[in-house]
Amino acid sequence: MADIPARTELKVTTGPIRGSRKIYVEGRDGMRVALREIDLEPSSGEPPLRVYDCSGPYTDPDARIDIMAGLPELRRDWIRGRGDVEEVTQREVRPEDNGQLGPDRSGGVQPFPNVRRKVLRAKPGANVSQMHYARKGIITPEMEYVAIRENLGREQMRDHVRDGQDFGASIPDYVTPEFVRDEVARGRAIIPNNINHPESEPMAIGRNFLVKINANIGNSAVASDVASEVDKMVWAIRWGADTVMDLSTGRNIHDTREWILRNSPVPIGTVPIYQALEKVGGIAEDLTWEIFRDTLIEQAEQGVDYFTIHAGVRLPYVPMTAKRVTGIVSRGGSIMAKWCLAHHQESFLYTRFEEICEIMKAYDIAFSLGDGLRPGSIADANDEAQFAELATLGELTQVAWKHDVQVMIEGPGHVPMHKIKANMDKQLEACGEAPFYTLGPLTTDIAPGYDHITSAIGAAMIGWFGTAMLCYVTPKEHLGLPDRDDVKVGVVTYKLAAHAADLAKGHPAAKMRDDALSRARFEFRWRDQFNLSLDPDTAEQYHDQTLPAEGAKTAHFCSMCGPKFCSMKITQEVRDFAAKQNASADTFLAASPSLSPLAGESDSAQLSGERGRLDEVEAEKGMAEMSEKFREKGGEIYLPAAE
Amino acid sequence: MADIPARTELKVTTGPIRGSRKIYVEGRDGMRVALREIDLEPSSGEPPLRVYDCSGPYTDPDARIDIMAGLPELRRDWIRGRGDVEEVTQREVRPEDNGQLGPDRSGGVQPFPNVRRKVLRAKPGANVSQMHYARKGIITPEMEYVAIRENLGREQMRDHVRDGQDFGASIPDYVTPEFVRDEVARGRAIIPNNINHPESEPMAIGRNFLVKINANIGNSAVASDVASEVDKMVWAIRWGADTVMDLSTGRNIHDTREWILRNSPVPIGTVPIYQALEKVGGIAEDLTWEIFRDTLIEQAEQGVDYFTIHAGVRLPYVPMTAKRVTGIVSRGGSIMAKWCLAHHQESFLYTRFEEICEIMKAYDIAFSLGDGLRPGSIADANDEAQFAELATLGELTQVAWKHDVQVMIEGPGHVPMHKIKANMDKQLEACGEAPFYTLGPLTTDIAPGYDHITSAIGAAMIGWFGTAMLCYVTPKEHLGLPDRDDVKVGVVTYKLAAHAADLAKGHPAAKMRDDALSRARFEFRWRDQFNLSLDPDTAEQYHDQTLPAEGAKTAHFCSMCGPKFCSMKITQEVRDFAAKQNASADTFLAASPSLSPLAGESDSAQLSGERGRLDEVEAEKGMAEMSEKFREKGGEIYLPAAE
Repeated sequence: MADIPARTELKVTTGPIRGSRKIYVEGRDGMRVALREIDLEPSSGEPPLRVYDCSGPYTDPDARIDIMAGLPELRRDWIRGRGDVEEVTQREVRPEDNGQLGPDRSGGVQPFPNVRRKVLRAKPGANVSQMHYARKGIITPEMEYVAIRENLGREQMRDHVRDGQDFGASIPDYVTPEFVRDEVARGRAIIPNNINHPESEPMAIGRNFLVKINANIGNSAVASDVASEVDKMVWAIRWGADTVMDLSTGRNIHDTREWILRNSPVPIGTVPIYQALEKVGGIAEDLTWEIFRDTLIEQAEQGVDYFTIHAGVRLPYVPMTAKRVTGIVSRGGSIMAKWCLAHHQESFLYTRFEEICEIMKAYDIAFSLGDGLRPGSIADANDEAQFAELATLGELTQVAWKHDVQVMIEGPGHVPMHKIKANMDKQLEACGEAPFYTLGPLTTDIAPGYDHITSAIGAAMIGWFGTAMLCYVTPKEHLGLPDRDDVKVGVVTYKLAAHAADLAKGHPAAKMRDDALSRARFEFRWRDQFNLSLDPDTAEQYHDQTLPAEGAKTAHFCSMCGPKFCSMKITQEVRDFAAKQNASADTFLAASPSLSPLAGESDSAQLSGERGRLDEVEAEKGMAEMSEKFREKGGEIYLPAAE
Repeated sequence: MADIPARTELKVTTGPIRGSRKIYVEGRDGMRVALREIDLEPSSGEPPLRVYDCSGPYTDPDARIDIMAGLPELRRDWIRGRGDVEEVTQREVRPEDNGQLGPDRSGGVQPFPNVRRKVLRAKPGANVSQMHYARKGIITPEMEYVAIRENLGREQMRDHVRDGQDFGASIPDYVTPEFVRDEVARGRAIIPNNINHPESEPMAIGRNFLVKINANIGNSAVASDVASEVDKMVWAIRWGADTVMDLSTGRNIHDTREWILRNSPVPIGTVPIYQALEKVGGIAEDLTWEIFRDTLIEQAEQGVDYFTIHAGVRLPYVPMTAKRVTGIVSRGGSIMAKWCLAHHQESFLYTRFEEICEIMKAYDIAFSLGDGLRPGSIADANDEAQFAELATLGELTQVAWKHDVQVMIEGPGHVPMHKIKANMDKQLEACGEAPFYTLGPLTTDIAPGYDHITSAIGAAMIGWFGTAMLCYVTPKEHLGLPDRDDVKVGVVTYKLAAHAADLAKGHPAAKMRDDALSRARFEFRWRDQFNLSLDPDTAEQYHDQTLPAEGAKTAHFCSMCGPKFCSMKITQEVRDFAAKQNASADTFLAASPSLSPLAGESDSAQLSGERGRLDEVEAEKGMAEMSEKFREKGGEIYLPAAE
């Protein structure tokens, strides 16, 4: 981890992740798909391990990073090459876009220097969504990029025996571009990439792909500034955030977002109602469809890849929350609930939904249908309000699909373990397998300060059950705004939860990394163990706190137990001994008939019946011989503790 | 958290947990059962919340703590009052008990000044185990203590509707002493308390009680010292460790353990083979039954409450581990495997098991039957070796029960999510519902540095399925020895996992704390929110990083969003409005017939059909009226952002 300042006043972390190399796999027409490879020690005899990489050019030592200029436009030619977009002049930025309704005491934010005058939009009547292409049978470069990216080392695994429980998912042995197209066409996966965010590297969210994670960043009226938000974005993707949501509120929303989008290689999501509310001075009742629509256009032209829209918060559902312990905890949900009550009208997000679809398909923005009525406590989980809204989200999914607009569905929240599976099952049923995107869920309310963990439990479980993307929770949840360290802890925690889900689903490529790390652990390749981990810096730092010496990184024992008690060391000796004696499990057992477990006691062990055949004399002779040999050859391997 | 030094050179943390009071509930004959109460702000109108308390006298401001003298002997009279014990002279401490086979370069450990000359043992032919009393129909004071301790505020909850999935557990609405007796008699729960550890506060481990957690501490040959181990023990129980295992190896094992036992109000477990191995200079092959037996007596007389004994590592199972990715990862397991191979004989732990039972029942020590062949990687989970050993542990459980000796069974390890349930199911079946005590399990291998989290996922799940005690994992797992901070993170993480399990099982008292905290959160009672959490210090510290001002602790908005976006604030306004209008959910909906969701769309919502009856005119009139009233009364509640 090198904190190298970019050539600007905004500093971000660049350089490779420790022990890894950025690589590019070639696709058609010179396409270069970014991946990461971890080299292992020569003694391992293993090839480098390939892992998924969200970090963008920041981890490429050959990339020239200039935050003031933004990233190169990877997808520019793909987008323009389809001939269905036109250039239009960007909507003029107004003071209220940055929340400047009165005197600005915030100090302001420097506008991004490289703002585009011209932006793209679908030609009249055209639909530029990936779903639209997919349904027409077109395999886009974006789909091919996703296919290459998702495969990792899966080719090596073709003869792999699938081990997992997938609850009806359809994870292929090998991801082809056609498979990606088909998943997008069915609505089971989305590729969120606005045509005005050509800097983004295509990625898929769907339960038949690797489980993804999202990191939230953003200013609030109380704290934060643009430099730290750009830094957090780069930091979050370094550790594995697949998408980033900019949840800024307060001042400077427009300019902050521009900095983030122009420098982000991952899809960016927003909740447009937050900005719309700023435009009406924070008075929810004063929101109008026109102001909201104007905000959508503003953000669409900037390049936001998915919008959280709380169109399922309908007027008749609001009273269902009156008896809840924690009422409505979604910000967007509560804003719309208040609007509905004040006007006593149905939400304009619901009544204008088809008009919103028209905007989405002109830029290829995906819906993230917000769960404005998600439970905010264990007490409120799986209640009437939550599931009433989910049914509406299912209805709206069908409407969006009618327009070939990509959709994912947001989910809870706070849910005890025994109620998690019902959330997934109901979502799959109500929303026709549209990808589920959940916040946690937190499995208890009593651990503020540790809610990355209370929620990682629920996240791993619901990811296993079929959730496509997990929205991270940081240790600061419920308490404050996450700082840089919190962002990293949140991302790594969710990365491990997503990986645990992939493993349990039986994802063909997931277990390769666990096995590689476990082999490294067993063979005391400490450097490989650090480098194969999700966070090599922390792993090495923790190791060094007990055994800081450089020699300890090649020591053939663990820092926990010391040399005398290292079970892995002893096992290696046992194994070495077995190898020397050419004593395979069968011949070994054959020499020990009297020691086989009682029949019927361990059916799971499926012990061979062969062992009973040798007579007692032979058995005793065999035992004595093996004992002698072990003492002769193996006994010496065991070193006395170097106290 | 007050770091008050005790009146000695050994410093431990004393004083109440922030926001809590130590209380004592009276039982028979002046018994005082320690609990903790959290007082809530008067505005809440709620009584204090009672929580389980493992922290012993250290959190009682009236207690006189003297580490050099040890804790008072809470159980002295109960033990002696039964008339079945005799005083014997304690076995003389030998240099090898402290690993002093050669010159001591460690600096040594000061012997505990208050060592007992006389210790207790069952009279010849007597059995002093709680299981023995239970089976004779005797309700001991220990059982009564457990009953009072487990109930918490459960009396208030008698009309509570059970909400959970318990997988066949038999959790009562209210714990009576007779229920405790019955569970102990059946072997479904244990109360580990050696008659030579009268300082301990009785507690139960069983799946029909609250899920417990264990914290490991201990010297190793590489690092640690006695002062820091005593401090870690007190620190671990402060945050909720129900038992502590002293896993010391290397020098000074005996003296370290004496300091820990004399100052511990929770049961202490050990792995006696570690000390036995030190006595033979670390040469596994040189271990003998005599040396092991002598070590058991030594530790029994000191007061160890449960012994991990790897009697299930049988000779024929060892070769089953040869093809594993990580072989044998249990230290005790690998020591015994090596012994078995070297001698080519069955393990003396297995062949001498009944002799071990004789020792256990003379002091009331519980077995923790070690899973020496547990998987050390995802690749090795649920394999032949693991389940062969489990079957043997089941066989040994029956042997122990024949002697009325208490037993729990240790479990894995590293297990992907989809293989966790099988572990619980097989354990229940093989071991006749003896309590399961698992290490994690870790649900992926790829996150060293975060293994408290990879394992908390598995721990919460297996706790839900029926595991009675969860052995904590710290962030240093696989990397180094935990320091004080790691111990706290490990304990709090496991406390939240255990609580999530209790919630999911539908434990009657568990949800009271979640609900109290959620109400505090919703009502912006920040201090109550901190105090009700598992770690008030961290919660408040995180809050203060964003909004440090004292006023912010009573602010009616969250530090994350600022005043304008606080959804809870908006919900409160919605609720206030509803209350003012006397607009219950029914009347509210009655006014909005045209807004009810489409029939059949949300069967889960079970919306009333009544709403359709009012005609359009009435409806529009109702809506207009409510809108007007909201603007008049509710609109003003909403404050502009205080930027």
